[in-house]
Amino acid sequence: MSAVPIALPHHRYDVVIEAGALERLGEQLRPLASAPSALLVFDQAIADTHAPVARASLARAGYETVAVPFAGGEERKTLDTVRGLYDVLLAQRFERRSPLVALGGGVLGDTVGFVAATFLRGVPFAQCPTTLLAMVDSSVGGKVGVNVPQGKNLIGAFHQPVSVVADPRVLRTLPARELRCGLAECIKHAVIRDPALFGWTRARMPDLLALDPDALVELVARNVAIKAAVVIEDEKETGVRAHLNLGHTFGHAIEAAVGYGRILHGEAVALGLLAAASLAESQGVAARGLRHEIEDVVARAGLPCAAELPDDARLEEAMALDKKVAAGKIRFVLPQRVGSVVIRDGVPVAAVRAAWTSIRR
Amino acid sequence: MSAVPIALPHHRYDVVIEAGALERLGEQLRPLASAPSALLVFDQAIADTHAPVARASLARAGYETVAVPFAGGEERKTLDTVRGLYDVLLAQRFERRSPLVALGGGVLGDTVGFVAATFLRGVPFAQCPTTLLAMVDSSVGGKVGVNVPQGKNLIGAFHQPVSVVADPRVLRTLPARELRCGLAECIKHAVIRDPALFGWTRARMPDLLALDPDALVELVARNVAIKAAVVIEDEKETGVRAHLNLGHTFGHAIEAAVGYGRILHGEAVALGLLAAASLAESQGVAARGLRHEIEDVVARAGLPCAAELPDDARLEEAMALDKKVAAGKIRFVLPQRVGSVVIRDGVPVAAVRAAWTSIRR
Repeated sequence: MSAVPIALPHHRYDVVIEAGALERLGEQLRPLASAPSALLVFDQAIADTHAPVARASLARAGYETVAVPFAGGEERKTLDTVRGLYDVLLAQRFERRSPLVALGGGVLGDTVGFVAATFLRGVPFAQCPTTLLAMVDSSVGGKVGVNVPQGKNLIGAFHQPVSVVADPRVLRTLPARELRCGLAECIKHAVIRDPALFGWTRARMPDLLALDPDALVELVARNVAIKAAVVIEDEKETGVRAHLNLGHTFGHAIEAAVGYGRILHGEAVALGLLAAASLAESQGVAARGLRHEIEDVVARAGLPCAAELPDDARLEEAMALDKKVAAGKIRFVLPQRVGSVVIRDGVPVAAVRAAWTSIRR
Repeated sequence: MSAVPIALPHHRYDVVIEAGALERLGEQLRPLASAPSALLVFDQAIADTHAPVARASLARAGYETVAVPFAGGEERKTLDTVRGLYDVLLAQRFERRSPLVALGGGVLGDTVGFVAATFLRGVPFAQCPTTLLAMVDSSVGGKVGVNVPQGKNLIGAFHQPVSVVADPRVLRTLPARELRCGLAECIKHAVIRDPALFGWTRARMPDLLALDPDALVELVARNVAIKAAVVIEDEKETGVRAHLNLGHTFGHAIEAAVGYGRILHGEAVALGLLAAASLAESQGVAARGLRHEIEDVVARAGLPCAAELPDDARLEEAMALDKKVAAGKIRFVLPQRVGSVVIRDGVPVAAVRAAWTSIRR
């Protein structure tokens, strides 16, 4: 078992990473949430595989569990879905100590987390990520929220989970395309601050794509540790946490402009990572060759290195709506080399357009 | 000028209490929220009186201000209103450092505060309460949220303001019934922990009802200090902050059962205070005579001591839906004497019914 502690100034929790961890969800949660009832929101795609495992574990720990399926992707990460879950909780008379358990990917976790953040001004929340992306990224850090027609994650809160249970066994049912999306965030973490992990990921890529259990546990643990270190340094994203946005200023704009669901988040991040590397090179932040070095690993993961994109005006408008706009200026996180990034604003529009061109098919 | 500092572990702000303070809102806010734009949500009832004062002050401090009127009461404190404000912020491309200013009563402040808590995962928020109730209660403490058809304040968050500006001059345009509602919370604070304030309030009641400026500044400052002390001890309401719920378990049920808007919050709290005192006497928590002592001051404030209420079943259902239900049991905050309260659960249903009867007309 690998347990990565997340020790924030006012709250502490563990990310448990282990094959079979989902079977121990209930006992993990019991000391942390004392009410008789629990809400389990599960991804419809795992209704017959992992959801019964989680439900049985909650029952063994004495929770009367209300289980609600969640179907669909980003298009369901909305205030309407949130309202529907409020109605379930209100109808069942859920109390402040009743835990909400999110068993699914990042979309599901973000949505259920926002419900947990805002129901009765905040109730206990457990993340059971079922995608690699959610394991290494969204389930750690406390960012929760939903999309609005104007953009992604524009409504949300910071609400830390009481526990995160990452069971690599659940990845067996994950579509290969989704697994690759998780690898995009892992590559991003390595580029931000871990050259050794970058090399390890490149070398173990065949094992990771073949779902080798030991490789997956190590991958998740090392990536959660990076994410956790950054989150602990800067819980509310006023400083270094912004480094995690590497590739995301481009990536979010790609998702918004191309349309949620038509391109997956991890694919957009991979493209954004490459655009950021190209921009870093053109701005003299990185030496020539960095884009190529990163693109090599991105390609080995089976992630896209180019895509059909809308015109510049559409992309720029989407970028201007992103949350990471300070005083009207777009701030970019740019890689200096593998293992180090810097933040730049005031980047010329022409350079940003050239970066878009570098990932346009 | 009276400034009460609110020093939480991770955040500090001042409650400025002064005649004319609203004219200095902009300069107060500028060091705390650096963006070029501000959103001012103001109570429609003060569109021609205090709103222009606030707006001019924001303009002098260099804020390009979007001003949005808010009309109505509890029935407008909804997720639909929240969505409408999100749309304004998104259309205007508000950023993370853009402040949201709530100029109005508690309903408006709670709603705008919830928008501030959840827009871009939290933006700066300033409270400019225009009712006595909001000055001494809802503007301090960081509780924000909205109502749902199932009950009051069931959706919400904790989001501390960056500043609170309480200008007693704005109370000149407040209806007398609203002023009395504020006095209900002041009486509550005194019963919880300040016998001297209880006596002072009783003695100065004619001056307070006549809007004597010195009396109002002292009243607000002393009450904010009590609220602040409790909030600082217990920001997230896990312990002593529950004492502030004195009168509210009954009060919220009255509002829900009678109908929001038909009875005002302060009136429901006054009735709840009397019901809690009767329950305290019947349970042997307080000596006989406490209800009478409190009722005397409640009556001097012109607040109701009885009301037409629905039947017990309706009231009990409303009570069971309240947030302060732990493990299925209703917890009551009960006064032992003026200046001291205790928390009790497992109170017999018959005793609760007798307390309802004691305030039924």
